[in-house]
Amino acid sequence: MATKLLRLARPRTIACVGRNYADHIAELGNTRPSEPFYFLKPASALLQPGGGPILAPRGGGARLHYEVELVAVLGKTVDEAAATTEAMEAAVKGWAVGIDMTERTSQEAAKKKSLPWSLCKGFKTFLPVSHLIPKEKLPDPHNVELFLKVNGETRQCDSTGLMLFDIPRLLQHVTSVAPLEEDDLLLTGTPKGVGPVKPGDVIEAGVRVDGKELEEGRITVRVEERQGGYGIAA
Amino acid sequence: MATKLLRLARPRTIACVGRNYADHIAELGNTRPSEPFYFLKPASALLQPGGGPILAPRGGGARLHYEVELVAVLGKTVDEAAATTEAMEAAVKGWAVGIDMTERTSQEAAKKKSLPWSLCKGFKTFLPVSHLIPKEKLPDPHNVELFLKVNGETRQCDSTGLMLFDIPRLLQHVTSVAPLEEDDLLLTGTPKGVGPVKPGDVIEAGVRVDGKELEEGRITVRVEERQGGYGIAA
Ligand SMILES: [Mg+2]
Ligand SMILES: [Mg+2]
Ligand SMILES: [Mg+2]
Repeated sequence: MATKLLRLARPRTIACVGRNYADHIAELGNTRPSEPFYFLKPASALLQPGGGPILAPRGGGARLHYEVELVAVLGKTVDEAAATTEAMEAAVKGWAVGIDMTERTSQEAAKKKSLPWSLCKGFKTFLPVSHLIPKEKLPDPHNVELFLKVNGETRQCDSTGLMLFDIPRLLQHVTSVAPLEEDDLLLTGTPKGVGPVKPGDVIEAGVRVDGKELEEGRITVRVEERQGGYGIAA
Repeated sequence: MATKLLRLARPRTIACVGRNYADHIAELGNTRPSEPFYFLKPASALLQPGGGPILAPRGGGARLHYEVELVAVLGKTVDEAAATTEAMEAAVKGWAVGIDMTERTSQEAAKKKSLPWSLCKGFKTFLPVSHLIPKEKLPDPHNVELFLKVNGETRQCDSTGLMLFDIPRLLQHVTSVAPLEEDDLLLTGTPKGVGPVKPGDVIEAGVRVDGKELEEGRITVRVEERQGGYGIAA
């Protein structure tokens, strides 16, 4: 019997946690944070299932990377959440799989100049998401397997149990700064295996619970070169 | 005759340009950017007129700074705008005055670690705004005077004619990355004179056209210490 697939509503705020898996920190040569940190993507970065391709920025210098992540979908306004499982259960109405697309050349330039990450993380189509995963289908968000394939080859595949800061702590941190609201999204960081994609590549991503993939969590999306917009010099 | 004052609608995306006035770049010891850059504030940072105080983060290390800015209020979805006056006129439905509140201790820590600015710029209440200024009251956004006072003393007072990148160029830059939509806000940078405020201080800000203050652009807001939330260690 076919499941009825529900789209995510458009969020206002999309908060994305960085460096939340030790092996991913090592692969990018970054240091382990002493507390969570996050950046924001604009709502216009969201790419719904069937919403067309990921648009790779123009220019010879562009290096487009994927990062598969578990996404918490807020069910109500949450201000200064406690870092408890109960608070997380009350805050979250469901889950999704998302791909935090990143343009690494402009990210490295921003890091070198100590500038914000809003450009390198915020291009349109830079957040492909799955459908909404109902809570009952994903009862333990710290014990599921995220995976991502490029052209059929597995590139990322790890348990969310490897997170450095758990989801209650991430929700506590982000909402200690400013509230999240219903339909806002919290991306919880990516495991190891991030890497480049180029126009023509097809990315598949998803989540397995007890070894079984959830239909609601599936993403299949193609990469195409963007015709206009900001270009990254070689 | 009293003017009918209109509130800003709640935006999804709030894009804030940094370092867009030469004297302000000098006062913070920053370097002049070769192209505009911006960061995002969450919608939950917005503080409407009469919406209560600015909440200063807790902790002995907190250093809360004001930055008065001219705000462009989007009137429609704009994707890859041209950097022309005509494109700006078509994109913007009105203006506002906003105060880009910033917690400098966490900003300096983020810059030192090459981390995003989302925390230091994104606390709740960190974007007090005025009412909507209709376009006909502010016919030339590059020729108005922004001012900000703390406890009645003028701290910032400069012409928007001093912007390094004009508003059409800012709109072009931001929308070359991802679209802005109706009611989204674009903050255009702050002139010199930024500085600290503490609980108990009262901030007034506004805009003068031909030397005459616009009622719609007036902000009067008090600073209070936040009771909960993220604290900044001394
Ligand atoms: Mg990520
Ligand atoms: Mg940022
Ligand atoms: Mg500013």
